[in-house]
Amino acid sequence: MSAITVVGSVALDTVETPFGQTVENLGGAAVYFSIAANQYADVKLVGVVGKDFPQEHISLLTKAGIDTEGLQVADGDTFRWSGQYEYDLNVRHTLDTQLNVFADFHPELPDHYKESPFLFLANIDPELQLEVLEQVDAKLTMMDSMDFWIESKRDALTAVIQRVDIVMLNDSEMRQYSGTYSLVEGARKVLEMGPTAVIVKKGEHGAILVTEDEVFSAPAFLFTEVKDPTGAGDSFAGGFMGFLAQHDGAIDGSALRRAVIHGAVVASFTIEEFGVGALHSMSLVDVQERYRTFQQLIHYEEQCLSSDLCPLRTGSGLPDQA
Amino acid sequence: MSAITVVGSVALDTVETPFGQTVENLGGAAVYFSIAANQYADVKLVGVVGKDFPQEHISLLTKAGIDTEGLQVADGDTFRWSGQYEYDLNVRHTLDTQLNVFADFHPELPDHYKESPFLFLANIDPELQLEVLEQVDAKLTMMDSMDFWIESKRDALTAVIQRVDIVMLNDSEMRQYSGTYSLVEGARKVLEMGPTAVIVKKGEHGAILVTEDEVFSAPAFLFTEVKDPTGAGDSFAGGFMGFLAQHDGAIDGSALRRAVIHGAVVASFTIEEFGVGALHSMSLVDVQERYRTFQQLIHYEEQCLSSDLCPLRTGSGLPDQA
Repeated sequence: MSAITVVGSVALDTVETPFGQTVENLGGAAVYFSIAANQYADVKLVGVVGKDFPQEHISLLTKAGIDTEGLQVADGDTFRWSGQYEYDLNVRHTLDTQLNVFADFHPELPDHYKESPFLFLANIDPELQLEVLEQVDAKLTMMDSMDFWIESKRDALTAVIQRVDIVMLNDSEMRQYSGTYSLVEGARKVLEMGPTAVIVKKGEHGAILVTEDEVFSAPAFLFTEVKDPTGAGDSFAGGFMGFLAQHDGAIDGSALRRAVIHGAVVASFTIEEFGVGALHSMSLVDVQERYRTFQQLIHYEEQCLSSDLCPLRTGSGLPDQA
Repeated sequence: MSAITVVGSVALDTVETPFGQTVENLGGAAVYFSIAANQYADVKLVGVVGKDFPQEHISLLTKAGIDTEGLQVADGDTFRWSGQYEYDLNVRHTLDTQLNVFADFHPELPDHYKESPFLFLANIDPELQLEVLEQVDAKLTMMDSMDFWIESKRDALTAVIQRVDIVMLNDSEMRQYSGTYSLVEGARKVLEMGPTAVIVKKGEHGAILVTEDEVFSAPAFLFTEVKDPTGAGDSFAGGFMGFLAQHDGAIDGSALRRAVIHGAVVASFTIEEFGVGALHSMSLVDVQERYRTFQQLIHYEEQCLSSDLCPLRTGSGLPDQA
């Protein structure tokens, strides 16, 4: 299996949604990404926890086969995040952030991590993302970020964007960073800086993929109940990059589009339950089943109003209903 | 050509978006719907304006071939709406509403309107929508509504929903009416009340179609600049119902899905400019061109991770990139 190194937060999350709540659950971007990508590739996690971090959480990761040698255990308490979602689950309020050991975190990659051909830089200080890029020479790199860094460390963030292959931001972050209302135009501005592909995450509305030649829009998987959207974006990234890693990092349009659907499918498991539970018990067979269902969600029969307008399309063999 | 009767507001709109503004422009749900559907079918408009309504606006409609015999001209001023959009164009603030002659409006359908096989009830008081339903016996009926009526006239709104074939609401209205977070579950609750299909509009995020057997998600057309989203939903309805009318009102899954794409395409013209200008100059050839481009936006190659998991899909003949 191909290997992916992921660098990002490992946290204890306290979350309240209209459908329930949890207290100090295993969370963090690197955790969601790792468990998601673990279905597709060998995952090597880089992060930091405090001495208070429950051993059972580390066991959950290692038993799943995730390499935690790069998970530092520092003196102090683990990073804690507390948030509340409104009935429109797209609106999230951060109630409390305790950085704790995460405040002084500097990622250090064990030697065998540095050979991973795939690298995901989850949402952390872009200066730390640059530190990681100095340590590795990955074949395919992907990054995430957030409004706070766009506002406070734009130059460092830009330096990261210029060095990675795939940039992932959500819709409001893309508008904020690009200064452009159109998500497609904003993504194209980012592409001009160097990356091969840009993904705009839109939460319950799915994601958009933009490359030099293509624009692809995928909805979220709409057939399941949503209890807690925490970790959906990082799970999406895990499914997306996991799929690419499984396919040797080919990033032609077709692979990228299929990877987006895998990301959306994997994220659909995450949001069904609080925490990482549903994601952790997901199998590749489960993923495949939902992947196939996706076709039903987006397919429509192509049809010409006037046959001379689109002769090449007529009788293209597309099935009526998938 | 098949005929559609539309009942709804005719207005003078004052709109400000981050990209410009207009003052007392021709607007209103019935106007946007009429101009959109006019590409596909004969449109018969029912509404009311005041004595101050510029004759040029009526000329624009009649010259386009829209039947305005059902447009009452009442003593008083025309309905005026004034709104402002934030940078996230999904957030709209109503600055001022002057109902004027619209306050005492009672739709009266000329006799030849009553034979239209298609009826669109745009967003008006559900009691007026019921009055219209009493006057006609259409083959296919569709309705829109808004938060104000869900809150203030829920029973009348429910009575309308029970009598129409297709219900169109936006995402927040669907959640408000159904009391369900999941848009698909909410739509299914509405289906249980009688309608054959439910459309959930999501603005820049496209639309979802739900029937007893199917869920279909369509993105908005992402390739064009957005200046003013006013009228997008009614233009969507016009393209959607126009397509169905052109196809004799067949509402099997395939027709409904294609109608949704037509709605999205037609709406994409509306939002390119302020007012009805871009919609008015749109031709069916323009629509067809964007309809074909849509396939690029949503198509991905189906592929099996393990061939024995989905033997029926392998080699289904779907093109790699449309």
